Amino acid sequence: MELINVDRSKCKRDGICISECPFSLIGESEDGGYPVARKAAPRICIDCGHCLAVCPHGALTFKGQGPESCLPLDRKLNPTPEAAAQFLRSRRSIRTYKDKPVPREVLEQLLDISRWAPSAKNAQPTKWLVIESTAEVRRLIGLVVEWLRENGSFPGVVAAWDLAERDLVLRGAPHLVIAYASEKALKPEIDCTIALTYLDLAAHGMGVGTCWAGIFLGAIFNNYLPLIEALGLPENHRVHGALMLGYPKYRYQRIPQRKATDAIWR
Amino acid sequence: MELINVDRSKCKRDGICISECPFSLIGESEDGGYPVARKAAPRICIDCGHCLAVCPHGALTFKGQGPESCLPLDRKLNPTPEAAAQFLRSRRSIRTYKDKPVPREVLEQLLDISRWAPSAKNAQPTKWLVIESTAEVRRLIGLVVEWLRENGSFPGVVAAWDLAERDLVLRGAPHLVIAYASEKALKPEIDCTIALTYLDLAAHGMGVGTCWAGIFLGAIFNNYLPLIEALGLPENHRVHGALMLGYPKYRYQRIPQRKATDAIWR
Repeated sequence: MELINVDRSKCKRDGICISECPFSLIGESEDGGYPVARKAAPRICIDCGHCLAVCPHGALTFKGQGPESCLPLDRKLNPTPEAAAQFLRSRRSIRTYKDKPVPREVLEQLLDISRWAPSAKNAQPTKWLVIESTAEVRRLIGLVVEWLRENGSFPGVVAAWDLAERDLVLRGAPHLVIAYASEKALKPEIDCTIALTYLDLAAHGMGVGTCWAGIFLGAIFNNYLPLIEALGLPENHRVHGALMLGYPKYRYQRIPQRKATDAIWR
Repeated sequence: MELINVDRSKCKRDGICISECPFSLIGESEDGGYPVARKAAPRICIDCGHCLAVCPHGALTFKGQGPESCLPLDRKLNPTPEAAAQFLRSRRSIRTYKDKPVPREVLEQLLDISRWAPSAKNAQPTKWLVIESTAEVRRLIGLVVEWLRENGSFPGVVAAWDLAERDLVLRGAPHLVIAYASEKALKPEIDCTIALTYLDLAAHGMGVGTCWAGIFLGAIFNNYLPLIEALGLPENHRVHGALMLGYPKYRYQRIPQRKATDAIWR
């Protein structure tokens, strides 16, 4: 398959695909300056699809993917700047959840949206371990509590679990979503964190509550083997972040203040 | 100042602020079960303001900050799930910019929105270095090119700069925004990456184009001293990410595909 195919009846030779290619892999044909892939292109191309995405005339097909096979972009759905700002500001870390599972279909949609998080060289290294079963979530919490006990940290969290099986690790969230990646990935910590931020905001947009699973990650990042073994990830892969997730019990009413911006301008 | 003050004429004693406090710092008063801060609260409180944000009755004042001093939350501005999904999916890495600066006011708004990015223990460690001056951006690019030359990497980027002062490092973006944090912060890499993702999406919402500054960061993460010294950050602080930024020259028309979701369900 050709990397790109150009419908010459639609192409206006405006050079937009040529200038947008991240690795300058598109040049001009000798017979009239139509876009053509350079020889090295198939080897270097990072599959970003910018050439296909940017063409105003729908003239370009990328690896057999034409304009009609892209996700539709409905300009009427674009938020105003005020709506975008409020969307980002109004996400909150949820720590009280309804006793109601999030349907598999909704969880799948959240992961689906996260596929569009940017990643180094568009390698999309983020993989997911979804602990959908609340029983399994609780089994993992038990291990985290053992780690806390061995460490002597967060004694209140240990006591709440021991006394009443109250979960202050994942706050009673029914689900846990873990981002992991191959050790061979280019920038897996950064890419997984961006993908988790997308998941977090996608959840916010769908009325699902989340919170970054700090204590859980503490056990992982401190290499607590019983927990790492319980996750059973493929070899040579590492966890880079996790979110607890469920329906919020309460609705947040307003946006509290944050620290002032700390910026040097130059 | 009291940590929290409760207007007993408004408080319905529903216990919502009590259950939402991340560190269980709010208890019930002996005279009737109104919310009161526990003794240890001022020492442990992470200033998240959840108690203030969640109260449905506007009954709670947090460190002198009452409901009226919060940012307004206009439910009519909330995106539909479809709009939120499209917002996240439609951001793209922009690599062709208009020769037009982004006004200081807009840059300030982007940083302002990023203040609401979640952070470990709500410590909000992210600080910004904004290279607003395009001349200064180009001086830094020159240093990055020297690093590439020493390394023998990206020879095409070096050649483009040498031959025609063409910038393939920051792609002609007029500005560069760098996220940095104290070495003493809890999880600065993760927190700065989340804050940068917020900045990235805030820019998308305001029609400003961005791209993660991979080659620039390569020089930083590989400890290229001439560049690090040129940034002149305060002592004991480290760069954790950067975005190039400016007005996109072209409008993206559609959303190209990404890899299939890779998830284990359990």
